[in-house]
Amino acid sequence: MNTFGAIFRISLFGESHGESVGVLIDGCPAGIPLKHSDFNTDFSRRRSGAKGTTPRKEADIPKIMSGVFNERTTGAPVMIMFENSNTRSRDYSNLIETPRPGHADFTAQQKFGGYQDYRGGGHFSGRLTLGLVAAGVIAKKIIHPLTPEARLLEVGGSSDIDAAVDRAIEAEDSIGGIVECTIGSVPLALGEPFFASIEAHMSQMIFSIPAIKGIEFGAGFRAARMCGSEHNDNIVSTDGITETNHAGGINGGISNGNDIVFRVAVKPTSSTHQAQKTMNISSGKMEVLKIEGRHDTCIALRVPVVVEAAAAVVMADFMLQAQQTEKIFNQK
Amino acid sequence: MNTFGAIFRISLFGESHGESVGVLIDGCPAGIPLKHSDFNTDFSRRRSGAKGTTPRKEADIPKIMSGVFNERTTGAPVMIMFENSNTRSRDYSNLIETPRPGHADFTAQQKFGGYQDYRGGGHFSGRLTLGLVAAGVIAKKIIHPLTPEARLLEVGGSSDIDAAVDRAIEAEDSIGGIVECTIGSVPLALGEPFFASIEAHMSQMIFSIPAIKGIEFGAGFRAARMCGSEHNDNIVSTDGITETNHAGGINGGISNGNDIVFRVAVKPTSSTHQAQKTMNISSGKMEVLKIEGRHDTCIALRVPVVVEAAAAVVMADFMLQAQQTEKIFNQK
Amino acid sequence: MNTFGAIFRISLFGESHGESVGVLIDGCPAGIPLKHSDFNTDFSRRRSGAKGTTPRKEADIPKIMSGVFNERTTGAPVMIMFENSNTRSRDYSNLIETPRPGHADFTAQQKFGGYQDYRGGGHFSGRLTLGLVAAGVIAKKIIHPLTPEARLLEVGGSSDIDAAVDRAIEAEDSIGGIVECTIGSVPLALGEPFFASIEAHMSQMIFSIPAIKGIEFGAGFRAARMCGSEHNDNIVSTDGITETNHAGGINGGISNGNDIVFRVAVKPTSSTHQAQKTMNISSGKMEVLKIEGRHDTCIALRVPVVVEAAAAVVMADFMLQAQQTEKIFNQK
Amino acid sequence: MNTFGAIFRISLFGESHGESVGVLIDGCPAGIPLKHSDFNTDFSRRRSGAKGTTPRKEADIPKIMSGVFNERTTGAPVMIMFENSNTRSRDYSNLIETPRPGHADFTAQQKFGGYQDYRGGGHFSGRLTLGLVAAGVIAKKIIHPLTPEARLLEVGGSSDIDAAVDRAIEAEDSIGGIVECTIGSVPLALGEPFFASIEAHMSQMIFSIPAIKGIEFGAGFRAARMCGSEHNDNIVSTDGITETNHAGGINGGISNGNDIVFRVAVKPTSSTHQAQKTMNISSGKMEVLKIEGRHDTCIALRVPVVVEAAAAVVMADFMLQAQQTEKIFNQK
Repeated sequence: MNTFGAIFRISLFGESHGESVGVLIDGCPAGIPLKHSDFNTDFSRRRSGAKGTTPRKEADIPKIMSGVFNERTTGAPVMIMFENSNTRSRDYSNLIETPRPGHADFTAQQKFGGYQDYRGGGHFSGRLTLGLVAAGVIAKKIIHPLTPEARLLEVGGSSDIDAAVDRAIEAEDSIGGIVECTIGSVPLALGEPFFASIEAHMSQMIFSIPAIKGIEFGAGFRAARMCGSEHNDNIVSTDGITETNHAGGINGGISNGNDIVFRVAVKPTSSTHQAQKTMNISSGKMEVLKIEGRHDTCIALRVPVVVEAAAAVVMADFMLQAQQTEKIFNQK
Repeated sequence: MNTFGAIFRISLFGESHGESVGVLIDGCPAGIPLKHSDFNTDFSRRRSGAKGTTPRKEADIPKIMSGVFNERTTGAPVMIMFENSNTRSRDYSNLIETPRPGHADFTAQQKFGGYQDYRGGGHFSGRLTLGLVAAGVIAKKIIHPLTPEARLLEVGGSSDIDAAVDRAIEAEDSIGGIVECTIGSVPLALGEPFFASIEAHMSQMIFSIPAIKGIEFGAGFRAARMCGSEHNDNIVSTDGITETNHAGGINGGISNGNDIVFRVAVKPTSSTHQAQKTMNISSGKMEVLKIEGRHDTCIALRVPVVVEAAAAVVMADFMLQAQQTEKIFNQK
Repeated sequence: MNTFGAIFRISLFGESHGESVGVLIDGCPAGIPLKHSDFNTDFSRRRSGAKGTTPRKEADIPKIMSGVFNERTTGAPVMIMFENSNTRSRDYSNLIETPRPGHADFTAQQKFGGYQDYRGGGHFSGRLTLGLVAAGVIAKKIIHPLTPEARLLEVGGSSDIDAAVDRAIEAEDSIGGIVECTIGSVPLALGEPFFASIEAHMSQMIFSIPAIKGIEFGAGFRAARMCGSEHNDNIVSTDGITETNHAGGINGGISNGNDIVFRVAVKPTSSTHQAQKTMNISSGKMEVLKIEGRHDTCIALRVPVVVEAAAAVVMADFMLQAQQTEKIFNQK
Repeated sequence: MNTFGAIFRISLFGESHGESVGVLIDGCPAGIPLKHSDFNTDFSRRRSGAKGTTPRKEADIPKIMSGVFNERTTGAPVMIMFENSNTRSRDYSNLIETPRPGHADFTAQQKFGGYQDYRGGGHFSGRLTLGLVAAGVIAKKIIHPLTPEARLLEVGGSSDIDAAVDRAIEAEDSIGGIVECTIGSVPLALGEPFFASIEAHMSQMIFSIPAIKGIEFGAGFRAARMCGSEHNDNIVSTDGITETNHAGGINGGISNGNDIVFRVAVKPTSSTHQAQKTMNISSGKMEVLKIEGRHDTCIALRVPVVVEAAAAVVMADFMLQAQQTEKIFNQK
């Protein structure tokens, strides 16, 4: 199911080298100011072109096809679309026979029986995150002043990120990284127990971003090595502020009034200039595969704004839900 | 939303010290053999009583209230309930004034405005996982021969688990641990791109288990420090088997024919015998809190069977879905 | 999917002659007063025993197994269960071979491959509406002062309902009826365009009640024979009150401030004392079937309170939703 | 929630006078042949221009923006969009002050607080059914050889449809009609008990079509006036064929092997050339409203193909679901 959310619901569509990529947003409140320039900042953060990212550039011009009137959302579904332009029309059909390691070439072929659009990763491409970032721009307006901020902690195992990228470029290999996201000004009592906990929904959303292989909240994996007396966050104010924040702002799946903090692991870009081995599915023989063309040396460089958008969408959905169930009866 | 799944859908209900805990399973196929003794093995793995776990014991007798006839599932919703018996009827109302650090006492109070059942953690209690394990028993039958197996890698930072528990008991503190789950015999091409990827659904489910604070698939956080040429798993057979399994059996969110592997971080039990500080919400003054009574020194000891159940439920849902969309048209 | 609702979500379970029937309610707001006697009025309206209804009587004692504490809902899932007691333990297996006309015996057998609980209609029994009525009792509290009121317009084609029942009893046949439901004090602007319109959700819910074969809103089928100038409801006040109410209180799927009005067709009880023909599925020969035992002459007599409950559940879900999307941004 | 379906999921977007209308289809199986000309037949049946329909004509050219590659569906979401062209750019803002009777002008204003796109009905326009018909074209391919066929039974109360339209044109008024849909070759055992019964889902979908005010299955409202012995359909073959079809092909919510038959009531077009009264919301005074411009005299003329599409979408969703739950375990 290509849809996320209970109230603020987003669906992604498109292919890397097809007609378009985009997003359909259902349940968007009416009256949110929205114009084309609102997307500029986040799109430019996601855009390639800088050192360590692919030289392929797209204009990324959002076409708002529904749900906005007089530069305000109308309450009807918002559809935002990006026409693909810079799609080199070379032949990609070899990806069927010799699937690239780390990519979804093989699994897509198995799942869709050869009907998938295999060009440049097709529907599995990181280009699909453009729609997610667009939804994030709107979500950030909904959750304001609550603000998710994501940043790179390290790439290639080093916090000197610039140097790590230089080394990877020189080695003609790709590298991964770790992104930390902090959400400030979170209202108390967002989230639900169990399947709709903040961790449950946030992790579902975050793992929808290609290349993510891990997520941890607060102390995360480090918590597994702490004692309870060390890990527990002492509550020091009547509005729930704690001395430490090992819980990452969440108890029982529900926001506790402190910052929500989580980290995600981004794997190294699957495409590298290194020669790799793979199976030729037709011949049944191993082949050496050399991926030509343009790729990101370190896709993690472009991930923070996507993580922010993801976090904003999740929090928007929680905030819109929070209007109702728990409090309504008391209001009477 | 206290429901998980698209086809095989489970809903948890109940409170630690209320009338019952249990699970409602919708979309369970008809014809699955099911009798009371089928639950014994998994329930005994989850049960307390061993060293490092709470001495509180419950009989955990499943009452199958619907959806089973002549020891087979009928296709109608299956409701399995556990009546609570061993609930010490002491006064828990102090948890409202002086919320326990690490627990959901404070967030539940904020969310439900004082109407929550606060006794022993109420609906947030780990006792709710009993319903999940019950669902897992059925799910394991559906996915057979696909088999999730979870085991403790370490507790309290040590792989000598017995010794680590002894140390914690002596220190009168609690400890966490890391659980690894491996799912073998996974069919190719389960899962969907993006919001219904295996990682997305699995992590949503896993974070529904109380005390989980992190999850990573395959190489996970370690992947963030690897080069692409090192991390990529070379495909070495036409059915997708790879030389290494850094991807944890998943590419593009879809099973690639290798074992699915993930690890989860379990925080230390929030209840410890150590004195802790917390805010008295009424008086606005800090107090020293000493949690009396029976708790697990290391809840992680009881988590593996819960993780297995969670994994089985997720895979059952994917397997039941996999019958349809991708293949149906080709069958014509 | 045996669940209805986006926010106030109910799931039905159980079988006529199994252990229990009941309902699980997720998304129920915290703080609603609820005690056992609250169910008395509606349960007694649904109960059999009066002229024209089956002499089988059940105690219908609700067991509230979760989600209620100190006679208030807690915000956690509410599970209400009814243990079956008055289930004559005769052999029902002949229903597999000679399915009763009008019942779900044959379709259930086809769908569930013989594993269904076929005793007394099993999961398809009208007894399942007991859980729906229980949910309705809670929903009515949520939507108060909005009040659904359902009443019989006619049975057996006659508005002299008493006489029509007498005639049917004498003829040893069963009869149907028409129920009208009016919902007063409906707030403006509930409902969504298209798939979540009031008509869409209400009809989905109403057709979940066994024996319903038609629904119409406002002028309904009569509207198809009116001119536009006659059918259109002129708005005569700034809060949307109209001169007539041919639209049944709904425009574009959204409540317009007038009473919501709809009518439903209830078919005659499928069980009659008349001899009927059916196919013996094993032998492939036609047989004469004579249904013995206790049935309702006119199930429609017991339907109004079920329709009310259904309407209350739908409106509760809409009201809880209405807190959010459309207005939230303006509140800032 | 502007999405319908559990497996084959469609979402509608767009506005009558905005940039576009369209549909996003998630869960569409891979491998379905699809080219632009496939839409011609159904689009021309929905198109206006004939006697009794509006002279406004749109080109209705489908732009397939995702999910199709080499003229086959890929398994990824299919997005089909229609750019609006023939939108007379007159001022519609008077609809806010003096809402048209029968339209959603007033309710949309209330719900969306003035931010709705009010031009030509905006998101509430019948033009949105274009996306539904497009989805129906694909759904019909999935369900083949199962075939929904819808036709007009009567308009303006007369089965001489041509004459009734002439009379309405002469009277400068609008008329409604009744559409009957028959679905042949339905496999046994589609549908679920209760909230996912065929009637429940079909009615939800059908009421999503603007102007529908009633639906009945099989004998429908007539059933309420029949005796059980008359209404019950005697099963006369081992595959469930019945002598009569008063049940409309459905028992217990599940297809019984006979044709599914239902009828829907279409109200008269709300726009008529007759002068009408309405309230001026600003001034609080009644005004006479005269709707100028182009409208359908009888929108029912264009509804049958929309009903067919709706039915096809519902049946596609049921058929894709039917692959799994009930049978999977037996296959082992």
